[in-house]
Amino acid sequence: MEIIESAQNAKIKAWKKLHTKKERDKSGLFLIEGKHLIEEALKSQLNIKDLVIQEGRQMPEEWNVKELTKVYVTDRVMKELAETETPQGIVAVCEQPEKENLPLDDGKYLFIDAVQDPGNLGAMIRTADAAGMSGVVLGQGTADPYNGKVIRSTQGSLFHLPIQKMNLEEAVEICKENKLPVFGTSLKGSTYTAIQPQKKFALIVGNEGSGVNPGLLEQTDQNLYIPIFGEAESLNVAIATGILLYHLREN
Amino acid sequence: MEIIESAQNAKIKAWKKLHTKKERDKSGLFLIEGKHLIEEALKSQLNIKDLVIQEGRQMPEEWNVKELTKVYVTDRVMKELAETETPQGIVAVCEQPEKENLPLDDGKYLFIDAVQDPGNLGAMIRTADAAGMSGVVLGQGTADPYNGKVIRSTQGSLFHLPIQKMNLEEAVEICKENKLPVFGTSLKGSTYTAIQPQKKFALIVGNEGSGVNPGLLEQTDQNLYIPIFGEAESLNVAIATGILLYHLREN
Repeated sequence: MEIIESAQNAKIKAWKKLHTKKERDKSGLFLIEGKHLIEEALKSQLNIKDLVIQEGRQMPEEWNVKELTKVYVTDRVMKELAETETPQGIVAVCEQPEKENLPLDDGKYLFIDAVQDPGNLGAMIRTADAAGMSGVVLGQGTADPYNGKVIRSTQGSLFHLPIQKMNLEEAVEICKENKLPVFGTSLKGSTYTAIQPQKKFALIVGNEGSGVNPGLLEQTDQNLYIPIFGEAESLNVAIATGILLYHLREN
Repeated sequence: MEIIESAQNAKIKAWKKLHTKKERDKSGLFLIEGKHLIEEALKSQLNIKDLVIQEGRQMPEEWNVKELTKVYVTDRVMKELAETETPQGIVAVCEQPEKENLPLDDGKYLFIDAVQDPGNLGAMIRTADAAGMSGVVLGQGTADPYNGKVIRSTQGSLFHLPIQKMNLEEAVEICKENKLPVFGTSLKGSTYTAIQPQKKFALIVGNEGSGVNPGLLEQTDQNLYIPIFGEAESLNVAIATGILLYHLREN
């Protein structure tokens, strides 16, 4: 069993670069850290290329990873490779899945317009999964879903849910052709509780500061607003997403 | 106008220590950074002891801060003092408000049991404010509300809403004596949509990993559960709080 002892090793150097979006886009690869996320990835359709294991650490016995390439590294190399302080001694190098082509003719969708905070994006993907959405569409200006912080915040939901990057104007057009109701979110919208739960829909939520692009809001069937009863100026976008998705879906 | 040029200055050293909970507890002081938060603090009852201003930066003209002590510092000293990368050239040293004594006999309350992530706690306080809660009770093991990350995540709601640190068993006892309905959150609870909106209530939400303390759950009137429709194992606690508070309050 060979153990990589140097952070200057070509493989390690190449994998470390996957912390940047540029290299992830170029290579089509990304990293995941820790047992829970890797377990979720193993259960999913995701293609894991390499498992990087810290020397002396064991993988859980129930993992079916015989076929996978395993690379062993020292503590120091693992520390260099991992973004988290406690990567639990294991990192997986994964292939980004093929582009989804969501039908947008039936089902329930979350459309995300330029949400930039990785923690927010991750929490929104996790919430969309919990609320039983059929898929998530990421518009331009949205954080990269393969960013480490996004992945950690999804708690594995990134591997459960079809995710598609797409121009949102086009996505809304397709919904309208397919008679799938589209709801925007806007301070000028109707109070969300005035809308009944829907069998199928797309909900658009937007950027932390500026909200949903006004051009998009003009294309929707209706725009919704969550009332503020206290002195807060607004809700966090991930929390607003949770309130709206759980209201809109049939409980 | 004197400008502090050294991070070794006694005042600067004392203020820098306020980044730790220990020193905040000892001194009863805390720091806030940036124009928006300081503006919210100025509008509130909060006692601001000192404004620390980076040389060359202006305070907004509309601020009524004539009476406040102002201390000017160099760019480098500001960088040492501030936790954020863009503190916008201004930091305020504030007194922690006197202990609240929430009546818990009427109104709507959020009880937080051992939530440890500062971003979650801040988002929950912001959401409680937005949902028009009367106050927030922080049980043992909950993050310090005067932690910089918590304050930033509250977006100023920390200064709008009465916040009380208190043993939650005692808080629930007081509610019961006052006939204020108490709802816990538990995987074994009833689906939350089975509960009608309430004129007055206390909702208990709990730790990111272990949820609400089982002893507390036994004391409640009813425990609630948010169904998971997809493959996610759970919801983020701040998002669950948003869904439940907006459902429970009368819209």
